[in-house]
Amino acid sequence: MTKKLWGGRFRKQTDELMESFGTSLPFDWRLYRADIRAGIAHARVLKEGGYLTARERDRIVAALREIEAEIASGKVNSTSGYEDIHSLVLDRLAAKAPELAAKLHAGRSRNDLVVLDTRLYLKEELAEIATLIRGLQGALVGKGEEYLDLVIPGYTHLQPAQPVLAAHHLLAYVEMLARDRGRLAEAGKRMDLLPAGSAALAGSGLKLDQKLLAELLGFGGVAPNSVDNVADRDFVVEVLSGLAICGMHLSRLASELVLWSTAEFRFVELDEGFCTGSSFLPQKKNPDPAELVRGKSGRLYGNLQAVLTVLHGLPLAYNRDLQEDKEPLFDSIDTVKDSLAIMAGVVSTLEFNRTAVARALDRGFLFAPDLAEHLVEQGVPFAEAHRAVGKLAAWAVEGEKEPGEITLAELKKFSPAFRPEARQLLDPAASVRAKKTIGSTNPGMVKRNLAKWKKKLEL
Amino acid sequence: MTKKLWGGRFRKQTDELMESFGTSLPFDWRLYRADIRAGIAHARVLKEGGYLTARERDRIVAALREIEAEIASGKVNSTSGYEDIHSLVLDRLAAKAPELAAKLHAGRSRNDLVVLDTRLYLKEELAEIATLIRGLQGALVGKGEEYLDLVIPGYTHLQPAQPVLAAHHLLAYVEMLARDRGRLAEAGKRMDLLPAGSAALAGSGLKLDQKLLAELLGFGGVAPNSVDNVADRDFVVEVLSGLAICGMHLSRLASELVLWSTAEFRFVELDEGFCTGSSFLPQKKNPDPAELVRGKSGRLYGNLQAVLTVLHGLPLAYNRDLQEDKEPLFDSIDTVKDSLAIMAGVVSTLEFNRTAVARALDRGFLFAPDLAEHLVEQGVPFAEAHRAVGKLAAWAVEGEKEPGEITLAELKKFSPAFRPEARQLLDPAASVRAKKTIGSTNPGMVKRNLAKWKKKLEL
Amino acid sequence: MTKKLWGGRFRKQTDELMESFGTSLPFDWRLYRADIRAGIAHARVLKEGGYLTARERDRIVAALREIEAEIASGKVNSTSGYEDIHSLVLDRLAAKAPELAAKLHAGRSRNDLVVLDTRLYLKEELAEIATLIRGLQGALVGKGEEYLDLVIPGYTHLQPAQPVLAAHHLLAYVEMLARDRGRLAEAGKRMDLLPAGSAALAGSGLKLDQKLLAELLGFGGVAPNSVDNVADRDFVVEVLSGLAICGMHLSRLASELVLWSTAEFRFVELDEGFCTGSSFLPQKKNPDPAELVRGKSGRLYGNLQAVLTVLHGLPLAYNRDLQEDKEPLFDSIDTVKDSLAIMAGVVSTLEFNRTAVARALDRGFLFAPDLAEHLVEQGVPFAEAHRAVGKLAAWAVEGEKEPGEITLAELKKFSPAFRPEARQLLDPAASVRAKKTIGSTNPGMVKRNLAKWKKKLEL
Amino acid sequence: MTKKLWGGRFRKQTDELMESFGTSLPFDWRLYRADIRAGIAHARVLKEGGYLTARERDRIVAALREIEAEIASGKVNSTSGYEDIHSLVLDRLAAKAPELAAKLHAGRSRNDLVVLDTRLYLKEELAEIATLIRGLQGALVGKGEEYLDLVIPGYTHLQPAQPVLAAHHLLAYVEMLARDRGRLAEAGKRMDLLPAGSAALAGSGLKLDQKLLAELLGFGGVAPNSVDNVADRDFVVEVLSGLAICGMHLSRLASELVLWSTAEFRFVELDEGFCTGSSFLPQKKNPDPAELVRGKSGRLYGNLQAVLTVLHGLPLAYNRDLQEDKEPLFDSIDTVKDSLAIMAGVVSTLEFNRTAVARALDRGFLFAPDLAEHLVEQGVPFAEAHRAVGKLAAWAVEGEKEPGEITLAELKKFSPAFRPEARQLLDPAASVRAKKTIGSTNPGMVKRNLAKWKKKLEL
Repeated sequence: MTKKLWGGRFRKQTDELMESFGTSLPFDWRLYRADIRAGIAHARVLKEGGYLTARERDRIVAALREIEAEIASGKVNSTSGYEDIHSLVLDRLAAKAPELAAKLHAGRSRNDLVVLDTRLYLKEELAEIATLIRGLQGALVGKGEEYLDLVIPGYTHLQPAQPVLAAHHLLAYVEMLARDRGRLAEAGKRMDLLPAGSAALAGSGLKLDQKLLAELLGFGGVAPNSVDNVADRDFVVEVLSGLAICGMHLSRLASELVLWSTAEFRFVELDEGFCTGSSFLPQKKNPDPAELVRGKSGRLYGNLQAVLTVLHGLPLAYNRDLQEDKEPLFDSIDTVKDSLAIMAGVVSTLEFNRTAVARALDRGFLFAPDLAEHLVEQGVPFAEAHRAVGKLAAWAVEGEKEPGEITLAELKKFSPAFRPEARQLLDPAASVRAKKTIGSTNPGMVKRNLAKWKKKLEL
Repeated sequence: MTKKLWGGRFRKQTDELMESFGTSLPFDWRLYRADIRAGIAHARVLKEGGYLTARERDRIVAALREIEAEIASGKVNSTSGYEDIHSLVLDRLAAKAPELAAKLHAGRSRNDLVVLDTRLYLKEELAEIATLIRGLQGALVGKGEEYLDLVIPGYTHLQPAQPVLAAHHLLAYVEMLARDRGRLAEAGKRMDLLPAGSAALAGSGLKLDQKLLAELLGFGGVAPNSVDNVADRDFVVEVLSGLAICGMHLSRLASELVLWSTAEFRFVELDEGFCTGSSFLPQKKNPDPAELVRGKSGRLYGNLQAVLTVLHGLPLAYNRDLQEDKEPLFDSIDTVKDSLAIMAGVVSTLEFNRTAVARALDRGFLFAPDLAEHLVEQGVPFAEAHRAVGKLAAWAVEGEKEPGEITLAELKKFSPAFRPEARQLLDPAASVRAKKTIGSTNPGMVKRNLAKWKKKLEL
Repeated sequence: MTKKLWGGRFRKQTDELMESFGTSLPFDWRLYRADIRAGIAHARVLKEGGYLTARERDRIVAALREIEAEIASGKVNSTSGYEDIHSLVLDRLAAKAPELAAKLHAGRSRNDLVVLDTRLYLKEELAEIATLIRGLQGALVGKGEEYLDLVIPGYTHLQPAQPVLAAHHLLAYVEMLARDRGRLAEAGKRMDLLPAGSAALAGSGLKLDQKLLAELLGFGGVAPNSVDNVADRDFVVEVLSGLAICGMHLSRLASELVLWSTAEFRFVELDEGFCTGSSFLPQKKNPDPAELVRGKSGRLYGNLQAVLTVLHGLPLAYNRDLQEDKEPLFDSIDTVKDSLAIMAGVVSTLEFNRTAVARALDRGFLFAPDLAEHLVEQGVPFAEAHRAVGKLAAWAVEGEKEPGEITLAELKKFSPAFRPEARQLLDPAASVRAKKTIGSTNPGMVKRNLAKWKKKLEL
Repeated sequence: MTKKLWGGRFRKQTDELMESFGTSLPFDWRLYRADIRAGIAHARVLKEGGYLTARERDRIVAALREIEAEIASGKVNSTSGYEDIHSLVLDRLAAKAPELAAKLHAGRSRNDLVVLDTRLYLKEELAEIATLIRGLQGALVGKGEEYLDLVIPGYTHLQPAQPVLAAHHLLAYVEMLARDRGRLAEAGKRMDLLPAGSAALAGSGLKLDQKLLAELLGFGGVAPNSVDNVADRDFVVEVLSGLAICGMHLSRLASELVLWSTAEFRFVELDEGFCTGSSFLPQKKNPDPAELVRGKSGRLYGNLQAVLTVLHGLPLAYNRDLQEDKEPLFDSIDTVKDSLAIMAGVVSTLEFNRTAVARALDRGFLFAPDLAEHLVEQGVPFAEAHRAVGKLAAWAVEGEKEPGEITLAELKKFSPAFRPEARQLLDPAASVRAKKTIGSTNPGMVKRNLAKWKKKLEL
């Protein structure tokens, strides 16, 4: 039988199946530090309101700290048969000081407490995720710097399209991750309001100094509507959405690492420490971390959908359905943290294979856009230039012409406007140098971007 | 360091983070009985192929049974540091009989083994779910019989529309659940093919009697394509889809129980054993199991989306992404099983409140369709009948006329075609009796349906 | 045969099926104003770079404006057989001035152009949505003011829990919508960077003044990475997520309106202009707009999952899969705009039914928390107060005691600490007045919140 | 103003916004043939019941056929301002024969009619999809036959793993598609019950011969519960799920075609008729149809989630939310049909590049499993064999040894148990021949599978 915070009007025992079905302790157990921190701050506020003496408050604080240590040490754990973490903490308090436990829950309800705990928990987790994002950004920037001169084929439709600097390609992920960080930071800011004082849904009639409470718990303000506070979970959905998008970005990076590790591409060699072998195919070195990261976007999307569904059409205010917000949230947080850490490891230890990359640059005919723009600079209308270079490209690809071998005379067969310097464009390094636009793969710009990021990331 | 089934070409230790990131033991642990059953059957087949002596086979079988007992007793558990359940079982076998463990994995790979284990596991779970569905169907049928004469308002747009028998309404769920059962049974049948013998992806060159293996493990046949066998997981998705639809049905039943338990409807009184109280609002008796069941459709939808995403665009054959199929599958199975059991308890213990239902039948004007059809029987075109009765209904609702009070003269003001017996239709019991179509709420039909289901469900 | 912007190396006609399968004109047609605006600005920038004369630029601008008018008037439309809107615009330009059309596409690619167009389009749509959100917020605030003194039962678990002001309940939605607005505004800000200049993926070698272009098109800056610019669509996903959350909020409001319109609740009467009738049940007045809005959260969730799936594991940079971002985006935008507008209409025209609400306040026993806090103020530990009031509530509910009838002597049977003023708490209006916390339903606070919102919304 | 089937009690005009928000004609318009077919059959049944004379019935039938022709010809269309297709058809009938239109809607409601229409529509669409699936299966089988001797690398973790026949790989998709077909056929069968006679939700009191109606409309039986009939949409979800799984399979095939078309793999050359070029990169030949098909699984997943969400927690019976089932359903049907057709075209016109495939077979060391099984046949325990071959593989890969060059002496360095015939295994064709298991890539088995499928598909 789980121990509960209620029961007054009840005469019958809860059905056993219902007990195990309803308990959230196996997962909300991880809110214990938040719950205890909230309890300590609440005790201080009750004392200010005159509901506890200073001595009572101090005894509660001391007892709660003991309980925290007991849970941290595993003495009390998630299988200890309580309905939820709030009941566990209160009951442990009651075991130590029954008359004080009886006083602590004044002016609050589990409806507002669980939101408070979750926000406290998220504050910490979002900070950790931000650090891990920076870690992966750092690994990408570091790898970009390490291969500063390396030009790789850029792809569209997975067909070689144009030469780009490897660093430029890696920086694309740095930008994506920066947006992820921004999104999660804004989610954190939007939820940075104390929900306590809402009690069950209507607010409390006790004298509770919520501004003090907000200050003690590090909130930027007090949330303005008690019904909204206990009813909505958009802060959970917003985090889940931010994590899903981040996981989507990671899945794309992962997918490229899998691709680049194939025997056919061989652009990168992943470190053995991040690969696994096969129980049946002894020759294999498999890019498992990348595959797992790619696969894990599935659960991130699913978790988002799960909580959105829970909230669909749900009348206000608190409904027990809302308990279903926590497992998806915790799972997405764990998943993204692990994925970020593992990808930082994978990226920072990989090595580019310059030979394979060089071979790939010879495939396709990556200089068409450069030649077309060369013609435009000579005054050829773009559409015409595009057409001419298209034919040239078809000719070169079919004839398996090495770009370096193509003569000016050959170029001129496709457009008389070609000038001698056009031939110099037929080289990956020249191609990237020819770019002029902001955001382009021009080496000077890429270097400045790397420097900017090193500074931002304090590398 | 987790113990692995591979390593031949590797010289470097696996990164620690990678180890914890990649291990599936914490969840695939629950496949242990399937894995051991598969191992025992495989040993028999290896013996038939000449790869094991009878004695070796017997020793393997005995050792595997010991391991099963060790795991069942908790001596070996999910935190024991293996990469997955297959490694755990093989390594435990190696501890008991190293030279035999070395022989058991011949002709198979984890790629086909994990599919085999999962299908064996699903066979059992799908059978259990079918039983639980029957349990809930039984509870619904039983409750329908208990209140055989009870007429309740049927709703469309959540507005009272027409009287229906409570039993008829409950039988709607019995039909939904029957389709759920059918869907899962067909999924089970579609996957009832032995994937073993596919090895990594191309098949094995050993002499493995797969037909014997299929027979030993209870499969209906041998799956025809080894690449498909290790690459696809549509059998997982199909089960997840069937469970999501079942959960959707449960969420609708749950939603109605929440609604019917409101102070405003009060159609049902849920048993206290399936309700909970409030930590702040002592007067509350909350329909938590129904709310939780309704909320849990979220995770069922999410799990489906998760695995669909994992499979999106995944090249053949096995990829490590596929490891992400298991947690969603296990979670959906647990969720549906618990939800079915709890709903059976809730339904079988609830009581209808006849007074409240009777009061509700007076609201709105539920006899309009009956009156309209009465007019049609008198030869009035339906559209005209509909119009006349519409005006009558508006008049009755506005004047707050009790249906029983309405006189024939009043009826005739709206259509001269009304005959005296029309007045008798102004009664819920008469309304349901007036229905004639197959599938209608006509009491005779409903009784026959109840009887049909009692027989089918062997109640 | 659709007309295309490419073809140089191709010798074979595109398969007819492929043409219809691949065309995006039927939906990207709605980007035409953005595409033309982008073209006009690009012409200006090409002139600055020396690729067009002033006269050529002016002719292009004039021709593009003509094309815009032709499309706006329906002369050229979505079925006109082009591959996409970019091809349509360029080809129409070519029809008017072939030599200029040939020059306009210099320095850009459809890969960056489609992102540019989509962002321009989103800027306008997000502004419109912000206005529509304010419209619904205004309707909620207005309705709150109209029924400033109305107390309704607040629900938890859909059981009556505590009295709250109707205005307080409505303001909960105002807060949710404010967060929705904030989220979408931040999404808008995050994407407020010019992607042009990225060309296919590597940038352009032409002299394009991107800062001027950004200024002309109203962007806050130039996006820093060309690969990222053409490859990522997180700005689409972020908007879809914001819209899904907004739709979720609307589905909750809709759900409550359906509930409140039931014959059993009858808290509100929806305006006939926003209801529909039945083809078979003439007495019905159905809350269809609310049902549709509730249902439409389905497509909002689905659209979000659709684009997340498209992006899962997609290698950089541009892939044709990305074309699949637009229909979900457009559909979610239309859906949310319509839903907001309709809900504003529904809310502003509904009427509360004071009689029904008053009756509902008598159900349950909504004063337990107030009584418990009264006891806490008398020094009774909360847990004890909670227990005492729980028993009192059970006694009152069972005996069907009207709260107003309960005597002090009766109260004292449950706790001797009750004081005479406790009896005054047994009244909804007193209950809300008794609240003291920030964010509570206290009438003074609610009035201040209404005033704050009126000012913010400039009502 | 849309024309409606209701209105009796209404005194106020519907709000204009509500009209456009609520109309389903723009999409349910495509049910017109089903609606008319249902109307014709209903007229016959009304005649049998005595509600229509034979002449009236014949006039209705004739008029409905005229209306069908008018719609088919475009004279009446989806923008004609009706609330839905049922209203359009009835109103057109009323224009032709007002007194008959007034009689036709007797005994039915839009609640059951829309389910009837949708099922009739689905019957046809599911048949078409089955044909299209067979078409793609045929293309795969045909391509397999065309390249019967071609061995390609089979991949796990996208690393070359073992040689497999191209035909075997293609047959994996044939199996997946066969399951898709099976799933959709079962969905079709499960919904093959006539919902008519349910009317609004309770059934009808008229004499309607539903068995005759079922026969006329080709249903296998009459659905047993009227409330279920109008309330549930699991038949829609089940089809959407089957289509999502099918689309997932297509996305995998598409993904492989994109991969195989890369310059690095070059396993296949897609036909130009199914590729597109670039507006900026003239050398490109892009596998757009495959990319689009891969991307379109997004909307298939999204549509499934959309309708699951709509149904989440929805009370019985009909609610207007259910109107939201149709657009996702229609969209998924169109998407899968187009995707199947386009993939059949792509597959049947592609060519394998034998040179590139041969080169790929040299990468990695694909014979390890064969060598390990060779050792097992010599009595070496599998784990030992695996270890030995793992080292051999590492040695071969590092030394860039061509498999053909490896001598017996070299083999014996890794295990003395190697016999001379082991060297013959170092060849892709020998490797596939060495397989013995059912379902393996053994050429004899593959040939038998191709033959089996040709027969099944009647090729």
